[in-house]
Amino acid sequence: MIIILKPEVSEAQIAHVIERVEERGMQAHLSRGTFRTIIGIIGDEAQLDAVALHAIPGVQDVVRVLPPYKLASREAHPQSSVIDVGGVAVGGGQLALMAGPCAVESAERMESIAAAVRAAGANILRGGAYKPRTSPYAFQGMGREGLRILQETGQRHGMPVVTEVMDPRHVDLVVEHADMLQIGARNMQNFVLLTEVGRTQKPVLLKRGMSATVDDLLMSAEYVLSQGNPHVVLCERGIRGFDRATRNLFDVAAVPLCQRLSHLPIIVDPSHATGRPDLIPACALAGVAAGADGVHIEVHDCPEEAFSDGPQALLPDQFAELAEQIRALAAVLNKKVSEPQR
Amino acid sequence: MIIILKPEVSEAQIAHVIERVEERGMQAHLSRGTFRTIIGIIGDEAQLDAVALHAIPGVQDVVRVLPPYKLASREAHPQSSVIDVGGVAVGGGQLALMAGPCAVESAERMESIAAAVRAAGANILRGGAYKPRTSPYAFQGMGREGLRILQETGQRHGMPVVTEVMDPRHVDLVVEHADMLQIGARNMQNFVLLTEVGRTQKPVLLKRGMSATVDDLLMSAEYVLSQGNPHVVLCERGIRGFDRATRNLFDVAAVPLCQRLSHLPIIVDPSHATGRPDLIPACALAGVAAGADGVHIEVHDCPEEAFSDGPQALLPDQFAELAEQIRALAAVLNKKVSEPQR
Amino acid sequence: MIIILKPEVSEAQIAHVIERVEERGMQAHLSRGTFRTIIGIIGDEAQLDAVALHAIPGVQDVVRVLPPYKLASREAHPQSSVIDVGGVAVGGGQLALMAGPCAVESAERMESIAAAVRAAGANILRGGAYKPRTSPYAFQGMGREGLRILQETGQRHGMPVVTEVMDPRHVDLVVEHADMLQIGARNMQNFVLLTEVGRTQKPVLLKRGMSATVDDLLMSAEYVLSQGNPHVVLCERGIRGFDRATRNLFDVAAVPLCQRLSHLPIIVDPSHATGRPDLIPACALAGVAAGADGVHIEVHDCPEEAFSDGPQALLPDQFAELAEQIRALAAVLNKKVSEPQR
Amino acid sequence: MIIILKPEVSEAQIAHVIERVEERGMQAHLSRGTFRTIIGIIGDEAQLDAVALHAIPGVQDVVRVLPPYKLASREAHPQSSVIDVGGVAVGGGQLALMAGPCAVESAERMESIAAAVRAAGANILRGGAYKPRTSPYAFQGMGREGLRILQETGQRHGMPVVTEVMDPRHVDLVVEHADMLQIGARNMQNFVLLTEVGRTQKPVLLKRGMSATVDDLLMSAEYVLSQGNPHVVLCERGIRGFDRATRNLFDVAAVPLCQRLSHLPIIVDPSHATGRPDLIPACALAGVAAGADGVHIEVHDCPEEAFSDGPQALLPDQFAELAEQIRALAAVLNKKVSEPQR
Repeated sequence: MIIILKPEVSEAQIAHVIERVEERGMQAHLSRGTFRTIIGIIGDEAQLDAVALHAIPGVQDVVRVLPPYKLASREAHPQSSVIDVGGVAVGGGQLALMAGPCAVESAERMESIAAAVRAAGANILRGGAYKPRTSPYAFQGMGREGLRILQETGQRHGMPVVTEVMDPRHVDLVVEHADMLQIGARNMQNFVLLTEVGRTQKPVLLKRGMSATVDDLLMSAEYVLSQGNPHVVLCERGIRGFDRATRNLFDVAAVPLCQRLSHLPIIVDPSHATGRPDLIPACALAGVAAGADGVHIEVHDCPEEAFSDGPQALLPDQFAELAEQIRALAAVLNKKVSEPQR
Repeated sequence: MIIILKPEVSEAQIAHVIERVEERGMQAHLSRGTFRTIIGIIGDEAQLDAVALHAIPGVQDVVRVLPPYKLASREAHPQSSVIDVGGVAVGGGQLALMAGPCAVESAERMESIAAAVRAAGANILRGGAYKPRTSPYAFQGMGREGLRILQETGQRHGMPVVTEVMDPRHVDLVVEHADMLQIGARNMQNFVLLTEVGRTQKPVLLKRGMSATVDDLLMSAEYVLSQGNPHVVLCERGIRGFDRATRNLFDVAAVPLCQRLSHLPIIVDPSHATGRPDLIPACALAGVAAGADGVHIEVHDCPEEAFSDGPQALLPDQFAELAEQIRALAAVLNKKVSEPQR
Repeated sequence: MIIILKPEVSEAQIAHVIERVEERGMQAHLSRGTFRTIIGIIGDEAQLDAVALHAIPGVQDVVRVLPPYKLASREAHPQSSVIDVGGVAVGGGQLALMAGPCAVESAERMESIAAAVRAAGANILRGGAYKPRTSPYAFQGMGREGLRILQETGQRHGMPVVTEVMDPRHVDLVVEHADMLQIGARNMQNFVLLTEVGRTQKPVLLKRGMSATVDDLLMSAEYVLSQGNPHVVLCERGIRGFDRATRNLFDVAAVPLCQRLSHLPIIVDPSHATGRPDLIPACALAGVAAGADGVHIEVHDCPEEAFSDGPQALLPDQFAELAEQIRALAAVLNKKVSEPQR
Repeated sequence: MIIILKPEVSEAQIAHVIERVEERGMQAHLSRGTFRTIIGIIGDEAQLDAVALHAIPGVQDVVRVLPPYKLASREAHPQSSVIDVGGVAVGGGQLALMAGPCAVESAERMESIAAAVRAAGANILRGGAYKPRTSPYAFQGMGREGLRILQETGQRHGMPVVTEVMDPRHVDLVVEHADMLQIGARNMQNFVLLTEVGRTQKPVLLKRGMSATVDDLLMSAEYVLSQGNPHVVLCERGIRGFDRATRNLFDVAAVPLCQRLSHLPIIVDPSHATGRPDLIPACALAGVAAGADGVHIEVHDCPEEAFSDGPQALLPDQFAELAEQIRALAAVLNKKVSEPQR
């Protein structure tokens, strides 16, 4: 950590800053420049997180040298993590291909979609039982019954299942039915929920919030990891942008950036990132080419009848075509789409 | 609602769109232009929310004519709402002046800050007992004990108190101790939490999320209102921007925009919006000049010892000076800072 | 300037970095921390601008301590500048009240609008003769004839005039007719044009670009100043935001931020910032309350017949009402709207 | 075009709106809904561009149905354009591989870099003779001498050359030396410059501005096309984002979006988009996988000695490795890197 002092800082203020640093067991290294004086801190800068250095008179700026997360960082864990999602490996050259409807709507619809995506090569089945909807008047999900349908459909087709959990009071219930817990973008900084899923041992699919930096995303992963659950897969799903031609702004550079900063796998969700079926395949391929450890695609066999987010779903045959392109691309990259183990 | 069809739309597709509209009890009004055909919908367009019109083949775009919220809209409720927060009126020309430390740290510190802000004219005391922290290693708040300290300090100084609730399981507890429940920016779309506070009759301070449009904010207010709690005060606290010279981007135009679209009061929080004490007074005054129904300011008597967000707190005498400027400005606008009733 | 080295940096790399620094006549101050080694640079860091320090192997990050602009900085020039625009003082407690149509459309229209805004208290007349239009098919301005009309109308009403210059080949011509040269937001980083207006001694109204940080804006001001023209007034006119309810995002905090970093006056343009007449007065007042040295407002007596940007113009009586509110607000702030000297 | 009227619109206002529409030779089609009245316009809506419909009393909103550009649109020109850049085809399955230093620094350096990138498969040589620099104190380019060096080096290696033009007065000169004229991001809405290059017949590389939507980019292309120059190649080079971990935000979805809306080829520039050599290869591959018609990469054989943007350049061997990956990826997509014809 480096403390940059104001041009008009007094000697008493400098002494006070140094005192605050040293009382935390760190060393302060003063460097008087022509135009500014700076203090370099030697020691574990995390010890200073609780000190409001910025607020000390005479301090102009405080520059962190280390990332604020530890367990999630590649410095602490150089080897890339591979996460086992109910028998499907994600990371380390093995791609997740998560597909399914936005929401579980009925056993029949789930069955037909699951059969189609499995046939096309999907290895993890998705479907929402609890839906975060911006309108209180919109369909909120089938709840417990939806969880049961999802689980049974996944088992019938040999696919582990991922579903969103929104309420900390539902974590135990969802853990019983799902192979992976999804934390949605709107809950990426719902620290209560992160703590709760961190207390389980279920893999977590952590979606990036719409206004989250990559550091923010990794800090949220740190919440889960710090509770004892190391099974986190990150997901880039688009951030808020100024061009409303797409629903969100797909930040594909976040994929290699996360991989440099962290050992955790990262997948992409071009369905939410673009909100437009005509752009989903191109963005899915872009994500894989950029090094993503998988893709997450919404598929529906009749989007106009979907209860939620129909307009951004691919049709089963569009998904099948995309899955084939992903396999061809994976081969060039010496990767492959994982096969379910059951 | 207006449906814009693609240039290449077929007659069968047009007929299908009309059928979907009419089966919901609406009338479809076809208009064939030189380059495009459009369908105007006559009736209550909310009936069509559940239909994925965008996903019907031949549809290019769907344009909403009405706002997606109802209870929060000024169309439905032309007169500005005045919210009573423990005897302090907010709205209708009466300004809230909420002040206090970011977090409740101890009874002694709370007492000294409360005495100072009350003397300066603050009418609602703030203080966090549960803190949303981006780092799992940072101070998370005093919890139940903090609630008790906040409540007692407020009573001693005749000020109602506002504090954040983050966990749906804590709503009942916080309701017992606070006069107003704050929903933080990171939880603005935590629909589980919004629903839970909507089931109480406590005033809610709803902070705008960092990537939320004004429509998103009003939809979140609608969640609370739709559960039966009409006592909502909105808060502009800065959104995510690209210039990191300030912590967030203070969107002052959201104040008059909310007031046109909604009857709910809106206050501003320049402490979080800027993250810089040197910019807080100017932005607080800007908010009041733009028509805000109050301000929310973090005040600490020793920012460098604050457990949370110390660097963005004003000192008590800086706050007193600002409060005086706000009163002078309010007078020009024919408004006044409310006096607590107890 | 501080150089942060990578954890795995070698001794040879450290020696090489120090050599590069010292060959520019600076001192390098090495500080070996527990987790990172940093190098503090002592001397005038501008000497290092030409060295691509980031590109040297072993370097992780380079942190500037000083702002990259000099002539525009308040450090170099602590006293606030007051700019004389054809006899109207801008800055130092004296407010500019620039008003007029987006484009000069005819002598008659210019006359009626000028009479109205002068009567309401405007002190500088605006009007575009060359218009930057996003569409090549839109009205591009009256050119030379528009300049003549603007100048004569201003003289008739005793108001200096400001108009945009877009083409470096037109600078000499515009200088003959105008009292102030406007650089539009889209040209804020048109360095050729900045250099050209910097070679004149006419006051320059420099509008912030839609994706410019405040530092970027001040660097563009530096271009003008570095050519020898010290008469620069900055203008916050809204940046690109994600909420399309307003045309741009009015960054009112940029006003006090510029005033801390720079001695140059700064005004606000709520017409372009919001693009909505219903929000313009609130944002104009917000700007003045935040400390702006003036406002810039589009006024048209028949917006629906305006050739350009009609929808964002105030009517003359709306402007007159706003001007009165601005004067009342200015009085509270111990400021006043300047009176033209001719 | 659709005009949405306010709820309180009067019959006289409706009649006035219809009159304004019809006097332009369009038909107005009135549709009275339950909550709103709308007017559909039949005819060529471009006729209404000059009417400030938004500004007419009673009008709430105006919705365009057609894109505002014509010559650039795919509707007008369904087949994808292939642009010939000095013998190198760009578009239609043939990829541009533009490479070279940010700035031309000397004949020797240009020679060594050109030899390296050509050997690696580059087909167009880039190098800046006029540099847009945010600081007036930074290296501004070698100018005319740089143009000569670039041209001769390109000829020696059989590569056409692309270079930026910033000043409308330099267009004729640059046309003599270059095979393609680059319009930089900061000049994307420098309409004077766009008009000037539109009057030549040289291919133009039009970079997207940092705050430009895809529609804005296509409108700028329309400026060039409308002057008679049909040879435009678009370039996605990153937009302004909130995460400063990368220099800009690489909007890869703009690639398929532009290709849907327009017939013009589009390439990607991951060097400027990310500003980080460690992310450039992943983003280049992402762009190609998303369907881009080429990539634009900065290469320097000693980045730390580069006069400009050294930190974002790849080394020649890094570029060679990337070029090989691009060829492998192109093969999967049934595309190929063009070979120069001379």
